[in-house]
Amino acid sequence: MSQKYKNSNLALNWRVGFHSTQSAEPESWFPATIPGAVQLDYARAFAWPPYWVGDNFKDYAWMEDAFWTYRTLFSKSNLTPDQQLFLISKGIDYQFSITLNSQEIYAQEGMFKPVEIDLTAFLGDSNDLRITVFPAPKSQQKTRDKSQANQSLKPAVSYGWDWHPRLIPLGIWDETCVAIVNKIHLKEIDFDYTLSDDLASADVTVTAQGSHLDGCLYRYRLIHPGGMCVVEKEGMAFDMLQIKYQVHNIALWWPHDHGTPILYTSELEIWDHHTLIDVDISKIGFRRVRLVMNEGAWDEPSQFPKSRSVPPIQLEINGHRIFAKGSNWVPPDIFPGLITSERYEELLDLAVEAHLNILRVWGGGTVNKESFYKICDEKGILVWQDFPLACNDYAASTAFLKVLESEATAIIKRLRQHPCLVLWCGGNELFNDWSGMTDQSLPLRLLNSLCYQLDPATPFIPTTPLMGMGHGHYVFRDQPRGEEVFQIINRSKKTAYTEFGVPSPSALEVLKSFMPEDELWPPTPGGVWEAHHAYNAWQGNTWLMQDVIEFYFGACDNLEQLIEWGQLLQCEGYKAIYEEARRQKPYCSMALNWCYNEPWPTAANNSLLNWPLVKKPAYTAVKQACRPVLASARLSKFIWRAGEEFSCHLYILNDSYETLAGGSILAELVGDTSLELYRWHYPVVAPNTNVAGPIIRTKLPQWQSRQFTLTLRDTQNDQLNSSYRLILAPCENK
Amino acid sequence: MSQKYKNSNLALNWRVGFHSTQSAEPESWFPATIPGAVQLDYARAFAWPPYWVGDNFKDYAWMEDAFWTYRTLFSKSNLTPDQQLFLISKGIDYQFSITLNSQEIYAQEGMFKPVEIDLTAFLGDSNDLRITVFPAPKSQQKTRDKSQANQSLKPAVSYGWDWHPRLIPLGIWDETCVAIVNKIHLKEIDFDYTLSDDLASADVTVTAQGSHLDGCLYRYRLIHPGGMCVVEKEGMAFDMLQIKYQVHNIALWWPHDHGTPILYTSELEIWDHHTLIDVDISKIGFRRVRLVMNEGAWDEPSQFPKSRSVPPIQLEINGHRIFAKGSNWVPPDIFPGLITSERYEELLDLAVEAHLNILRVWGGGTVNKESFYKICDEKGILVWQDFPLACNDYAASTAFLKVLESEATAIIKRLRQHPCLVLWCGGNELFNDWSGMTDQSLPLRLLNSLCYQLDPATPFIPTTPLMGMGHGHYVFRDQPRGEEVFQIINRSKKTAYTEFGVPSPSALEVLKSFMPEDELWPPTPGGVWEAHHAYNAWQGNTWLMQDVIEFYFGACDNLEQLIEWGQLLQCEGYKAIYEEARRQKPYCSMALNWCYNEPWPTAANNSLLNWPLVKKPAYTAVKQACRPVLASARLSKFIWRAGEEFSCHLYILNDSYETLAGGSILAELVGDTSLELYRWHYPVVAPNTNVAGPIIRTKLPQWQSRQFTLTLRDTQNDQLNSSYRLILAPCENK
Repeated sequence: MSQKYKNSNLALNWRVGFHSTQSAEPESWFPATIPGAVQLDYARAFAWPPYWVGDNFKDYAWMEDAFWTYRTLFSKSNLTPDQQLFLISKGIDYQFSITLNSQEIYAQEGMFKPVEIDLTAFLGDSNDLRITVFPAPKSQQKTRDKSQANQSLKPAVSYGWDWHPRLIPLGIWDETCVAIVNKIHLKEIDFDYTLSDDLASADVTVTAQGSHLDGCLYRYRLIHPGGMCVVEKEGMAFDMLQIKYQVHNIALWWPHDHGTPILYTSELEIWDHHTLIDVDISKIGFRRVRLVMNEGAWDEPSQFPKSRSVPPIQLEINGHRIFAKGSNWVPPDIFPGLITSERYEELLDLAVEAHLNILRVWGGGTVNKESFYKICDEKGILVWQDFPLACNDYAASTAFLKVLESEATAIIKRLRQHPCLVLWCGGNELFNDWSGMTDQSLPLRLLNSLCYQLDPATPFIPTTPLMGMGHGHYVFRDQPRGEEVFQIINRSKKTAYTEFGVPSPSALEVLKSFMPEDELWPPTPGGVWEAHHAYNAWQGNTWLMQDVIEFYFGACDNLEQLIEWGQLLQCEGYKAIYEEARRQKPYCSMALNWCYNEPWPTAANNSLLNWPLVKKPAYTAVKQACRPVLASARLSKFIWRAGEEFSCHLYILNDSYETLAGGSILAELVGDTSLELYRWHYPVVAPNTNVAGPIIRTKLPQWQSRQFTLTLRDTQNDQLNSSYRLILAPCENK
Repeated sequence: MSQKYKNSNLALNWRVGFHSTQSAEPESWFPATIPGAVQLDYARAFAWPPYWVGDNFKDYAWMEDAFWTYRTLFSKSNLTPDQQLFLISKGIDYQFSITLNSQEIYAQEGMFKPVEIDLTAFLGDSNDLRITVFPAPKSQQKTRDKSQANQSLKPAVSYGWDWHPRLIPLGIWDETCVAIVNKIHLKEIDFDYTLSDDLASADVTVTAQGSHLDGCLYRYRLIHPGGMCVVEKEGMAFDMLQIKYQVHNIALWWPHDHGTPILYTSELEIWDHHTLIDVDISKIGFRRVRLVMNEGAWDEPSQFPKSRSVPPIQLEINGHRIFAKGSNWVPPDIFPGLITSERYEELLDLAVEAHLNILRVWGGGTVNKESFYKICDEKGILVWQDFPLACNDYAASTAFLKVLESEATAIIKRLRQHPCLVLWCGGNELFNDWSGMTDQSLPLRLLNSLCYQLDPATPFIPTTPLMGMGHGHYVFRDQPRGEEVFQIINRSKKTAYTEFGVPSPSALEVLKSFMPEDELWPPTPGGVWEAHHAYNAWQGNTWLMQDVIEFYFGACDNLEQLIEWGQLLQCEGYKAIYEEARRQKPYCSMALNWCYNEPWPTAANNSLLNWPLVKKPAYTAVKQACRPVLASARLSKFIWRAGEEFSCHLYILNDSYETLAGGSILAELVGDTSLELYRWHYPVVAPNTNVAGPIIRTKLPQWQSRQFTLTLRDTQNDQLNSSYRLILAPCENK
C-alpha cells in the first residue's frame, strides 16, 4: 500500500502469550513489542539476561515448539462510508492465522509475503484481534539441525550454524499496524523500464493497481535528482492503471566505485475532484545489468570430448565490466525484528568505506527489510540476493512448491524495484553433496521460471557455487594437507571466489561482553568458547584454531597475544585472497569473503566485523586490498627461513575506469634491518587493467626477529602503498 | 482436433505458384502435393532430376527467397446449421498468411504450431483459399550459413551443415485438409497423471477442451492392453471438461530392453442425446522418468575452493537406472513433407534391432511428425527431444521470444502425451564458443520456464553438452595430435557421451546412386564427392579422410578397397567408444553416436545408415557393442608391431536387470596362426553391473599378415562372444 494512510494508524497495545495447541488460550499475557519476536517479549516480561551472553540462548529452546498469540483489543472506530480499517503487516514469522472476534479471517505460511486485510466487515463495537503464530516449521523432529528447515522458507540459519546458535525467532518481525484507509487508495505500484542500447533513453511503464480509482484523476511526475521534473502526465485513473512514457538523456545509476548512484523520484498522486487522496513516492534508478562471459572462458574446453564452457559470472553494469569486490552478508541479528534501518545504515557505510561494491545476501538468512535495499540504492552497493534456501535438499512436495511460489513472488515483486538488485540466486550450495539438489530440482526450476516471468532483465543463477566458481577454503592453513591460503589461492583458477574465509578470535572487548571472566583464559572446548563457535563449529578444529596460530608464532601466553596473532593471520590471509583474485582478472571477476558481519558475538569467526559493529583488524586489511588502485605482491607462502631465497611478483592492480599514470614502486623487506629489494618503474596502467611487473628474488638475511614485512611504496602516490607481514622461522641445520 | 470428422474432408485440388512480393500473383500455377514442399512441386512440374543426385540441389537456391502461394478453389458446401467448415493443418513451413476470397483470415510464423481455422463465416458461393508461404527466414543476408536461422525456429540444418546441403524446404509439410466439422466437437485433449511412490497406482486427470459441449454427455473408458476396461466414467460434458480418476495395479510402460512398452487406450466419446458426435482415442503409457545423479558424481569436487558437482544425466525409468545406448537422430529427409510413418517405422525397427534404447532428436533438425512418437511409444524407444535450436546465438529479441513461446508451447503440448518422451533439451551445443549462448540467455530460460509449467514431470536440460558430458571427437584418428579413438575415449571420464563420430565412405551402391561413373575413382575434392561431404565438410580433412585410411592400410588401389577399409575403421572405432562408455558405468550413463541416419546420400559420413535405409557395416558393429550382455576387451590402440607386448583388459558388461551366471571366456589372437591367450573364469554378474577381469599380456608373434583379430568366446553362451580387428604394422629395426 502507499504511504498516504500512515498517519491514521490506531494506537494499539499488543500483548502476547503462549499455548500448547492452536485453540488453547494462553495462561497469561505479557506486553509485546512490534516489530520484535515472541522470545524477546517473553524474556523482557521475565527479566531474563541477554540471549547473547554465555549460553543463555539454550533457555529459549522450548519456545520454538509453542503456539504464540498476539492480541489487541480496540473499540469500533468512527469510520466514514469512504473509509476502511486494514491490518497491514510487512512480515509475520512464520506460519500464522489471524482471527477477529474469534472468527478466522486469514491464514498464511511464510514470513516474506506482506499482509493487507480489510477488517471492516468483521468489526464489532469492541474488537479482539489476534495473530496466532505456529511452532517453528520442522520437516522432521529427529535431527535437531538445519535439515528441519528443508520444507519451508524459514531461514535455515536459525536451526543452528557454525556461527549461529540454535534459536528460531517467531513473531511479528516487520512494520505492522491497524490503519484507517480511504476506500480509494493505491495498492501495488510497479516501475518497469527498458533502456535503449546506448543507455541514453528508456521506455518506462508505471503500473498501479488501486481500489476504487475509477472516476479519479492521476498526476504523475518523474523528477531528476537535481529537482527538475522531466516527465509529467495526468489523466483518468483506473483500478489497473498503466502510465507509459519515454525518458531521454538519462543519468544512470552506478555502483559507488564506478560513478554516482543516481536516483530519480517517481510520484504518483490520486485526486478525487480537488482532493489529493493518495500518493506514492518512489526512488528509481536506471541501470543495465548483465552477466557476461568471463574473459578467456570461451577458450575452454579445448579438448575432445568437449564439455560446455563455464557459465558467466562477470557483472557488467551499464556496459562496464566490474570486478565485484564484496562480502557475504548474514543476518545482523538473530532476531530480524531487532534490526533497524539505522543498524543497516551503519553496516552499509562501513562496506562503502572498505571499497566493497557488492554484498551477497546469503540464502541461509532472511531477505532483508525494505530499508536495506533503499540504503543500498542510495549508497551504490550492488546486491546479490539469494532466495532463503541453503545447504538442504528441498524436496518438491506440492505444499512446499506452493509456499515457495507465494513467498518468492512477494520477494521478487518487492526487490525488483531496486537498482541495487543485480543478481538473483536460488540459494546457497545446493548443488553439492551436503545439499543434494540438482538442476532438475523443481523448486529451483520454479524460481528460475518466476524470475524469468517477473524480472527477466535481472540475471538468475540457481545456486552458488556453479561450474568455474569456488567456495572455500575457510582456514589460513589446512593443517592435514600442510597447505596455506597462499598456495591454495595461487593454484586456483576460478571465474569467481564467492566464499572464502580466514578465521580469527574476536576482539577482547567482544569476548568480555559475553564470557565469564574465569572462562576467558585459557580457551577450552565445552563451555562458552564452544557455545560461541570457537570449537567444533564446522570441521573439527574450527574456528579458534589455536594450533595454527601457535604453529606460526609459538605457544601463546595470554589471551591478548592469541587474539593479536590470530587476527594477524586473518589480515594477511584475506589480503592474499582478495589480491590474488584481483590478479587473476579478467578471467576472475569476483571476490567475496565469508563473511562480512555476524548475528551475535562469536568467540572466533571468519567475519570482518564483530557483532554488533566492532571492526576487526581484518576489516582494515580488506579495505586496503580492495582499494581501486594499489601495488600488490604475489607471495608463495607465509613462513620463510633465514638464508632462503625470498621471491615475490609485483603488480599494479587497477579496477577503476581511470588511466593510472606510470610511476615507480620501491619494494623493501623490513626485519631487523631494512633491505631495499627493487625499484620498479611501472608503465601507464589502462583503465580496469592490471600490470604484472618483475619477480623479485633475494636471499633472506639471518635476522633475529620472527616477523618481517614486505613494503611496496610509491613516492609519488602513497595511495598505492601496500605491505605484507610475514614470518621468519628459526634457522635449522639441514 | 479429434478424429471424428476425418471422413468429411473435402476432396480438393491444390496448385502452387511463386511470386516475388507478397501481394503479387504467381505467373503460373502447377499441381501441389500435400503434404510436400514447394520445391518438390516445382521440380515435378518441370521434370527436374532428383535433388539428391550430383549437385542438383544447387538449382533450388533461388526458391528460398521467393513467395509461394498454394491455392484451391471450391464451391460452397451444403453445411447444415450444426456444421462448420475448418481448415486444419498440422504444419505449414515456415511463415505464412492465409486468405479466403482475398481476405486475410490468419497469419503465423512457425512450422510447428498446428492451424485450425473456422472458415464458415468467410465462405462465398465459390471460394478461393490461399496459403502464402514467405521466403525462408534470414536474420541477415551476408553469411549464407546456419547463422541466418538465429532468429527463427526454422531448423538450422537446412541452411547447410557438414552432412546436409544448403536447401531450405518451404510449404505444407504435414497433414492438411479442409473438413466439415460438427459444431459440437472436441478440441484439445490432455492426459496427465501422477504415479504413486511405489508406481502401483496413478491419479489421472483427463482435460478436454471442446466446442458447444454443454448439454452433451461424455463417456470415458480406460482400456488395459489386454482388452479389459479398467475405468469407466460418464457424465455431463462442458467446454472445459475435467475427468479425474485413479488407476490401480498399473502395468508400466518400459523401454524395449527393460520390459514391455505397455500402452493403455483412453477413449472419450461425446454424445448428443443418443448420437455419438465425437470421439478421441489415445494410447497412454504410465512411467516415471527422472534424471538422477550419476554414481560417484557427488564425490566431486573434492578440493577447495570447491565448485559444484556435475549435473545429473543418469536416466532412471520406473526406478531402474538405465544405461542409455542410442544415437543421434537427424531428419530422415531434406524435405520433412516426404517423410511417412512407414519410413519412420523402418528406421525405428532397425534401432530396436541394434539394441538402441534411446534416440536424441537433434536440435538442428525438425521436431518429428506425430507418427514418429507414436511408433516410439509402441516400440519402447526413449526419446530425448531437443527444441529446434542449434549452434547459434539466438538473441532475445521480443519478436523471437514471441515465436519461440508459441512454437515451444505447441511442441510441448503435443509431445508431453507420449511415454517415450523422457528428456527436453533447449538445443544443441549452445553453451560453446561456436554458439555463444549462456545460462543467462532468455530464450533458454523461457524454454525452461515453459517446460516447468507445461510438463514438470519430464526432465529439462538447457543444452548439450553440459558440465561432465562430452561431445566428439569425430575421427578415428586425430592426425595432428597423433591420437586414436582408443586413447581419446580411454582417457576420458564423462557422465555421458552424447555425441561421438567415426566417419566412413558410404556403400558402393549409395555412391553410384548419385555420382557420375567417371567421378567415382579416384575421389577428388571440388566435385560431387565434396558436394556430398567427403571433403571440407567440417574441419579440413572430413569426412572421407583417405589419409587416415591409408595411414593404417597403405595406398588404396580402388574404390571397393577404400570403402572396405574406411568402414572397418568406423566399425572398430564405434565399438571402442560404445564399449568403453559402458565400461565406465556407473559413473557414465549414456553413449549416443553421431549419427544414426542421414537426410540424403552422403559420400562419407559418421552415420550408421546411408540414406534412405542402407545399413553400413558399422550398424552391425554397434549392434554387437550394444547387446545387453557381452564380453568386452579394453584395447589401448589399433596398430601394433610384431614382437611388441600386446595387452587388453577383459570385462563382462551387463546392462540388463538379470543376473548372469558365471562362465568362462577364451581370449585368442588370430593372425597367421591362432594364439590362445587366456581362459577367464568369470564370476556371477549382478544385474546392471560390469565385472572387470584380468589384464592379459603377451608378446605378439612375427606374423606376416597386416591384420589380426582378438576374439573372446564363451563356449556356454555364444551370445557373449566378441571380436576386435586390429592392424599389425610392418616390422622395423629399432
